[in-house]
Amino acid sequence: MAAGNAPTRPVPLREVAHWDLEADVVIVGYGSAGASAAIEAAAAGASVLILEVASGSGGTSAMAGGDIYLGGGGGTPAQRRAGFEDRTEDFQRYMMLAGGPDADAERVRLYADSALDHFRWLTEQGIPYRDTYLPGKRMAPGTGDCLIWSGSEDAWPFNVEARPCPRGHLPEVVGEMGGRVLVETLARRAEALGARPYFDARASALVADEAGAVHGVAAQIDGEWRRVRARGGVILCAGGFVLNADMLRRYAPQVARLADDPLSAGYDDGSGIRMAQGVGAAAIHMDELFTTLPFYPPESHVKGILVNERGQRFINEDAYPGRVAIHCLRQVGDRIYLLVDDAIFEQPTELSRIEIAAVGGSWEEIERELGMVEGTLVSTVAVHNRHAARGEDPLFHKTAKWLKSLDEPPFAALACHIGQAYYPFFTLGGLHTRPTGEVLGVDDAVIAGLYAAGRTACGLPRSAEGYSSGMSLGDCTFFGRLAGRSAAGAAPGG
Amino acid sequence: MAAGNAPTRPVPLREVAHWDLEADVVIVGYGSAGASAAIEAAAAGASVLILEVASGSGGTSAMAGGDIYLGGGGGTPAQRRAGFEDRTEDFQRYMMLAGGPDADAERVRLYADSALDHFRWLTEQGIPYRDTYLPGKRMAPGTGDCLIWSGSEDAWPFNVEARPCPRGHLPEVVGEMGGRVLVETLARRAEALGARPYFDARASALVADEAGAVHGVAAQIDGEWRRVRARGGVILCAGGFVLNADMLRRYAPQVARLADDPLSAGYDDGSGIRMAQGVGAAAIHMDELFTTLPFYPPESHVKGILVNERGQRFINEDAYPGRVAIHCLRQVGDRIYLLVDDAIFEQPTELSRIEIAAVGGSWEEIERELGMVEGTLVSTVAVHNRHAARGEDPLFHKTAKWLKSLDEPPFAALACHIGQAYYPFFTLGGLHTRPTGEVLGVDDAVIAGLYAAGRTACGLPRSAEGYSSGMSLGDCTFFGRLAGRSAAGAAPGG
Repeated sequence: MAAGNAPTRPVPLREVAHWDLEADVVIVGYGSAGASAAIEAAAAGASVLILEVASGSGGTSAMAGGDIYLGGGGGTPAQRRAGFEDRTEDFQRYMMLAGGPDADAERVRLYADSALDHFRWLTEQGIPYRDTYLPGKRMAPGTGDCLIWSGSEDAWPFNVEARPCPRGHLPEVVGEMGGRVLVETLARRAEALGARPYFDARASALVADEAGAVHGVAAQIDGEWRRVRARGGVILCAGGFVLNADMLRRYAPQVARLADDPLSAGYDDGSGIRMAQGVGAAAIHMDELFTTLPFYPPESHVKGILVNERGQRFINEDAYPGRVAIHCLRQVGDRIYLLVDDAIFEQPTELSRIEIAAVGGSWEEIERELGMVEGTLVSTVAVHNRHAARGEDPLFHKTAKWLKSLDEPPFAALACHIGQAYYPFFTLGGLHTRPTGEVLGVDDAVIAGLYAAGRTACGLPRSAEGYSSGMSLGDCTFFGRLAGRSAAGAAPGG
Repeated sequence: MAAGNAPTRPVPLREVAHWDLEADVVIVGYGSAGASAAIEAAAAGASVLILEVASGSGGTSAMAGGDIYLGGGGGTPAQRRAGFEDRTEDFQRYMMLAGGPDADAERVRLYADSALDHFRWLTEQGIPYRDTYLPGKRMAPGTGDCLIWSGSEDAWPFNVEARPCPRGHLPEVVGEMGGRVLVETLARRAEALGARPYFDARASALVADEAGAVHGVAAQIDGEWRRVRARGGVILCAGGFVLNADMLRRYAPQVARLADDPLSAGYDDGSGIRMAQGVGAAAIHMDELFTTLPFYPPESHVKGILVNERGQRFINEDAYPGRVAIHCLRQVGDRIYLLVDDAIFEQPTELSRIEIAAVGGSWEEIERELGMVEGTLVSTVAVHNRHAARGEDPLFHKTAKWLKSLDEPPFAALACHIGQAYYPFFTLGGLHTRPTGEVLGVDDAVIAGLYAAGRTACGLPRSAEGYSSGMSLGDCTFFGRLAGRSAAGAAPGG
């Protein structure tokens, strides 16, 4: 893991005798945010140069399933075809809840109003989408279908606050990660429009004048030290800080309980955030960490119930698994069990590292085998079963379709323990930006010449409790575009 | 509530044509941290000037019970007399646990090694202490006795990690707040040593040179604008930010669930933190908020059990009530009940705003009256009672002396609801400092001329889960002293 949490001092502009490279817009990082920014900047007539530390485009976006959170305006084509009329107000309300107590209302409003246009834009860039809908609980199903339920829309308490609608939109991709196809398509488009990518190019520091305005980037390209001038602006799309141990300890120390499963393609070292902090940028919600517990597929396991090591249930299991995981982390003790009966049991995926902790002919037997206090687990299951048989969950409000009395032996407890099972995680905190991508200083003033998007910024997703799949890629692509346009507009003649 | 969360820009040194006031050490804030800093600076021969926004000394320290967390080295006089041999390693281990996942080991070590000396120093300043010990669960008992259990020392999991020992040391004060006597005694001593307090003096900004070094403070004193020169350094002891609504929303949005009960004497508006941020200071752990639930006295209520709105128990109720309160906040839903039977019931204090929610002859009746799902509360109580009768708590490890089978009707459920009962709170995040009080910039470098102590800094207490009464005042007084010495040492001839 990378180390150090101090801001990176900028190179003083006066020390730059000449520029090795120049462009209107210089983008650091070539994931989905960087590629989207490049397209819009180039389409606006700006010359665009991209510095990517890896040997190809993709970033951490390429590791994702590739769904983008979209809806509102009556629905995308896939939503309408599946019979969902997604009202903007429901979409917006869900996004506000998902953003947590400090949700960015301006950003959410803009995104909700523009999501249909954004979908059209993605299509125009060449991202292939079918109009097909796949019901049920899915994660990156890999079937090529488009529309999936990717969040907690139809789970309590969201389903009482906003009319539920599926909003995850996957590209038509079979047999590989949708995120990779997404980024590669965007990257091809950016390059077709003239954007020049430099690979194996590590941006080290911003170049700033005495007033703090940003004029370019100092970078190592193929091992050579280069000063890169940005006439309109530098856009930081360099990912989050999930690989930076010192930043995690300082900002999100709760990560220490999890096994070492950061979600990153290898370069989320916080360097983008630190470079911006070096010119006075503010970083916000740095304690917010997304994590998830992929206890399904198999989908049938959503009908199981999760209990802590005292045999207590604690969440409606049909909520998005990221929300479920956060509630796992709130339990005292690291042992978490998924209880299933014979009717719903299937072997957990290898990826999940969920193991069978106990098998028995009765819940009393399971309770004993797990070393739980007599009457605890048994009472939890009895209360659950009694109501589930009637299609009710008065305790946690799981929706009826996922309720099942766990009464068909043999029974099993599957270990979803914190620190042992797969709880991948990434960071949600980042630079404080306006929806335009302009980076704000700790004094709330815009830093001239500096923009950010993607997980280098704190965007739409800023609360682990509300995160839904597709929100980060939606944020990366949409606000990446806005940042690209802003920086292009700031270039001479832009 | 105060507003604004942006750093306060410093006044450029070059714009200061003359200084209205001068001293070696200028202290902003005259609570226990400021007074302790003033004593040590003055004792070291420095001229000391104190700017206090209120009309008298005290700050929020004066609202506290006044206990200071002390121990180690074999024990303070009160500990030894009561038969406790408090080893430094136990004291230190407890403090490290209490500090949470990013506890400051250097600060903790220094404090643990020096706590007996610090007690002696407090005595020398004139703080009156008896050598008496008051066993049991107390909060600011007001009897004039000294030694109390003020944290989670004898509660799980702390009691298995470090040998338990009472460490709260209260001044000999009857009939008023110990904290007020503490601060007033320190203030008298500071003034006897020559420190000059200015009241109704609002510090507005630091005065800094172009390299960022601090040279003084701009302040309004009795409505007049004054430039105050600090030859050795400015020490910010201006409290936390619990009264600043914008800072709370940005850094600790979870506060929104609590009723409006900030713990403050009226000036914890974050101005100290923001002034320092204006010269590049780092603020850390700004999301950490202390809160507590004073569900005792009466002490007998510690024998009750706390359940959430699903009738589930969630914490060993003998833990420090601040730790209890944090676990209340982790529950889904705001309704929290304390279950008691006739043997332990007493009227809750008026302060606590804990009301009787249900009374009944059986736990079934209580369960129904609270509208809980049949079998939930009843099962929780049955499991608890069965073990409590044997002096055991296999679920939450409450110590035997607080265990009681709740089987003597009538029974009652007392409402300790979040947003309704009294959960006072204050902020634990603040400026990143060295144990010397030197303020660190976001680049981890020391900011010349700037020091901080008390809740303007992030000190020993930095995790709500581990907080124990007396840790904040211990931190204020001890690290206030160090800051005073450091600033005095930095003055010409110091």
